[in-house]
Amino acid sequence: DSLMNRKFKATFCSNVNIQYLLSFSLRSHTCGELCSSHVDEEVTLCGWIQYLRQDLFVILRDFSGLVQILIPQDESKSELKNAFLGLTVESVIMVKGRVRCRPEGQENKKMSTGEIEVCAESMEVLNTCRKLPFEIKEFVKKSEALRMQYRYLDLRSPRMQYNLRLRSQMVMKMREYLCNLHRFVDVETPTLFKRTPGGAKEFVVPSGDPGKFYSLPQSPQQFKQLLMVAGIDRYFQLARCYRDEGSKPDRQPEFTQVDIEISFVDQAGVMSLIEGLVHYSWPEDKGQINVPFPSMTYEEAIRDYGVDKPDTRFGMKVTADDCSRVCALCCQWKLNMGRWRKWMIIAAFALCVVQEVSVVPVRADGSLKSPLSRLLSDTAKQQLLQMAQANAGDLIFITAGPRENVRPLLGKLRLQCVELLESYGVPVRDPSVFHFLWVVDFPLFLPKEDNPEMLEAAHHPFTAPVPEDAHLLYTQPRKVRGQHYDLVLNGCEVGGGSIRIHNASQQLYVLDTILKEDPSLLSHLLEALDSGAPPHGGIALGLDRLVSIIVGAPSIRDIIAFPKSFRGHDLMSRAPDFVSEEDLKPYHISVVWPSADIEGQQDNSV
Amino acid sequence: DSLMNRKFKATFCSNVNIQYLLSFSLRSHTCGELCSSHVDEEVTLCGWIQYLRQDLFVILRDFSGLVQILIPQDESKSELKNAFLGLTVESVIMVKGRVRCRPEGQENKKMSTGEIEVCAESMEVLNTCRKLPFEIKEFVKKSEALRMQYRYLDLRSPRMQYNLRLRSQMVMKMREYLCNLHRFVDVETPTLFKRTPGGAKEFVVPSGDPGKFYSLPQSPQQFKQLLMVAGIDRYFQLARCYRDEGSKPDRQPEFTQVDIEISFVDQAGVMSLIEGLVHYSWPEDKGQINVPFPSMTYEEAIRDYGVDKPDTRFGMKVTADDCSRVCALCCQWKLNMGRWRKWMIIAAFALCVVQEVSVVPVRADGSLKSPLSRLLSDTAKQQLLQMAQANAGDLIFITAGPRENVRPLLGKLRLQCVELLESYGVPVRDPSVFHFLWVVDFPLFLPKEDNPEMLEAAHHPFTAPVPEDAHLLYTQPRKVRGQHYDLVLNGCEVGGGSIRIHNASQQLYVLDTILKEDPSLLSHLLEALDSGAPPHGGIALGLDRLVSIIVGAPSIRDIIAFPKSFRGHDLMSRAPDFVSEEDLKPYHISVVWPSADIEGQQDNSV
Repeated sequence: DSLMNRKFKATFCSNVNIQYLLSFSLRSHTCGELCSSHVDEEVTLCGWIQYLRQDLFVILRDFSGLVQILIPQDESKSELKNAFLGLTVESVIMVKGRVRCRPEGQENKKMSTGEIEVCAESMEVLNTCRKLPFEIKEFVKKSEALRMQYRYLDLRSPRMQYNLRLRSQMVMKMREYLCNLHRFVDVETPTLFKRTPGGAKEFVVPSGDPGKFYSLPQSPQQFKQLLMVAGIDRYFQLARCYRDEGSKPDRQPEFTQVDIEISFVDQAGVMSLIEGLVHYSWPEDKGQINVPFPSMTYEEAIRDYGVDKPDTRFGMKVTADDCSRVCALCCQWKLNMGRWRKWMIIAAFALCVVQEVSVVPVRADGSLKSPLSRLLSDTAKQQLLQMAQANAGDLIFITAGPRENVRPLLGKLRLQCVELLESYGVPVRDPSVFHFLWVVDFPLFLPKEDNPEMLEAAHHPFTAPVPEDAHLLYTQPRKVRGQHYDLVLNGCEVGGGSIRIHNASQQLYVLDTILKEDPSLLSHLLEALDSGAPPHGGIALGLDRLVSIIVGAPSIRDIIAFPKSFRGHDLMSRAPDFVSEEDLKPYHISVVWPSADIEGQQDNSV
Repeated sequence: DSLMNRKFKATFCSNVNIQYLLSFSLRSHTCGELCSSHVDEEVTLCGWIQYLRQDLFVILRDFSGLVQILIPQDESKSELKNAFLGLTVESVIMVKGRVRCRPEGQENKKMSTGEIEVCAESMEVLNTCRKLPFEIKEFVKKSEALRMQYRYLDLRSPRMQYNLRLRSQMVMKMREYLCNLHRFVDVETPTLFKRTPGGAKEFVVPSGDPGKFYSLPQSPQQFKQLLMVAGIDRYFQLARCYRDEGSKPDRQPEFTQVDIEISFVDQAGVMSLIEGLVHYSWPEDKGQINVPFPSMTYEEAIRDYGVDKPDTRFGMKVTADDCSRVCALCCQWKLNMGRWRKWMIIAAFALCVVQEVSVVPVRADGSLKSPLSRLLSDTAKQQLLQMAQANAGDLIFITAGPRENVRPLLGKLRLQCVELLESYGVPVRDPSVFHFLWVVDFPLFLPKEDNPEMLEAAHHPFTAPVPEDAHLLYTQPRKVRGQHYDLVLNGCEVGGGSIRIHNASQQLYVLDTILKEDPSLLSHLLEALDSGAPPHGGIALGLDRLVSIIVGAPSIRDIIAFPKSFRGHDLMSRAPDFVSEEDLKPYHISVVWPSADIEGQQDNSV
């Protein structure tokens, strides 16, 4: 708690005119701000009973921290004393009293207000608290279901208070940067929209017109481009987006993106803008970050890390022989791991057992401990060690095959390996380090998974080709790179954007000829491009994920006030819920109940 | 246009580091910023062709304004000249050139850049524009349907650019006030929620669980209160809200409110906070507003204005005789109106013809021109004139009956009368004047319209009673006043809020005993109040309406980028739209088509 108190002070109370903090409120001070400079002052505090101690003290809590209240022991004040002693934990009180230094030797250095205490002179109970399902203490472990059901209690924890306040403050800084420094216009776009072609993941909203539905958009993509056509020049929005993905862990049916679009800009312009944005809004207590961020092509990312969002906080790159036929990954096993080494090698073998990957531990003397060893000549062994850049004590993963399969496989093993090492207490990635990375030069189209003869947009059909590849659109579309850029943080994609197609006929060609999609569904956008559309581009940052990485939260649910369970349920209010057929009538819909055997399935999962 | 140019400059370009305005963009300057201090500078401009003039000039437009580009007439530059002459209106170009003073006598004082012009040295066509359905000029009158269908063109007008930019800037100032000055926490709350009891106006969203639906909330009321229970202390959010009201003019199915909640606060505290907020965020070019705002009780508002949201920009109060049996409204007819007077009296009679209101014109000599006149004694006539505070030339509306009918009737006539006067060119209300007003002391409960024996919440069931009336809850609930406050601007309700009930048993009593609602539907809220809820209160401002009044827009559709028609349709993308039964399957719903005779009705309205 005391650590959190300090963090609050550092992050949220600096540069604040204290006058303002108290504005419009019944209190004269907040609990957490009191210190020795307030000694002898008369204060009025409002807050929650954290706990009572030895009938002598009450620890009072508000959003800013904790303070110790001294319960008067004097006979003449027995009424006040009894009132205090009758309090239940988490009840809400208002206390008037005088600040004094704690007696010598009784200071609490772990508490930011630990030098002082407040001698209570009067107290009013504002609300009493029933017996709660769990205590409001960081170390009390609760199940996620219980936390969600009583979210209003869970949010009282210092950790959640810190997360929500940091999120709010970061968003405010982003707005200052965009709106005040760079004159972006904050424009709200509709969330009751039209289903986009192939929008299988879009929630539908029945309207009063029979058979007609709105759709909750996955992003304001069309609107942001139309705003550029409308001459808004610079648009941003903290946009609520919706995606119905059923039960994917760590996805939310509604999420927020920092949505940005800018006219008369190129790729470098958008990237600089975002670097400035992240730098400007970066929380003070999270250290410095350096801009510009490094950049890597899609090609390089797949080659070296087997993935398009590499975690560059550690090495362990995928290596290959000269003809790229054999690929290897070298895990720098720590020789000093002693007795864990055996178990880790077993675990590594387990990881690889179904994946046609050989695990080759390198002994302390440099020899290979593997059945392969007997089959290879000394030169071949030497070449393997050299290719994998392996040393004594390391562990080599080795495999061969087509590069589009082998690299991603080793890329996955690379991450599993690090998790394995960390689970054994080997610190590979520093949790206080933030590695931003741009990944660029993505292919514009990819073969469809279910029909590789056909192409689909690698990101979305509005991405413009890299200028020097544009002519290939009409001859070899598979070779065209897009002006797309992904922002990666510590191996997670936290943003993606592109320069858009602003030419109507190029857009029509991509939709119609290359992607074989029905262009009439986007006729309003095509018409708009034909009406004087400026060159434009933009980006969307995934705010929830970005903030969760910054605060080190294990889940995005920890930086959202009222998240849904991974089944999409609100466990507090029990949403979604049944609606009567009567209430559905105005929308001309009716429930189609599943047949009996499916109906029998009880849904007890969270 | 020139006026708009100037307004842009005044409102949006002051205090801006020009360096920033151009950041990350292909241009060196914006069109509207150029003036005589730029003479001899080489500039790069990007924008739209507003028009070509005499093959000599191009007027180029961007968001900041217009500038004149001189087309070179020199033989050696005929290629460049021809490129210019081939341009269609609204095409997008990038021009490089040098700024120079216009020749003497050719300055245009109506144009903010009218002292200079730019001699084009090179030009690149970034996009060509087809023939548009209407011109981008303020004075070109278009139908609303056409404006909505081509919204991306409509938004290019200076008026719409001004409206959207003013809205963005006002919202930014509000955030600075709340977040930076008063340490409010910006918390996002879910829009996929649970249907609230009696939430007939809530859109439903089918989920993947058969028969279960989310609901799009009309406001984050429950969440904001839960955040106070969670110890957030000060919450705000620019919250998207949803209300399915079918085809009400000037309502939108989705709208935005400035949503605020604060702990340990009283009514006066919230009111001061909002006065500060409005004052701080008030647009510079709209003059000063004075705080604190005047305050009026509900009782007074109904008595004097016949309505709970009086337009106090003019007098014409409702008056009554001593026993409040006879009520009158005196319209100060202007004697100098000459020939219009007759027509206005006829119109006034027409207004009253079905409403049992007598219209009594007062002649220039002070006599009454009415059949009533013959029935009344001279004393009675004198009393009438005195009661109505009428003078020669005025028009008196007079009626009698129960006060709850008569006052609202005259209140309505009061507004109709003023509209009548203004339609004849008599300026009653100054459009540049902004009258804010608090209305307080509302009744907490009102008799249900369809069953006056039963009570319903005047605003919502979470409003706390005025402390001195609290004991009446249990004896005479009809007499209880609520701690509710409405903010009224120029006769429109732009905000409403209250101090909330924070005591679980009082909340249960209101829901269960007084309102006869099923409290189990709000069990999570009741449990939360029992878990250490602080005293709290808040408010929600209707952002769309507030901004539309400030910019003097005839409809809230003029300050929303992509509004729906009053039938709830998006005329640009044609939302809502049909969804296949196949796509509805995952949601376990099916369309119930209306019977044939209803189906025959074609919906052609906007």
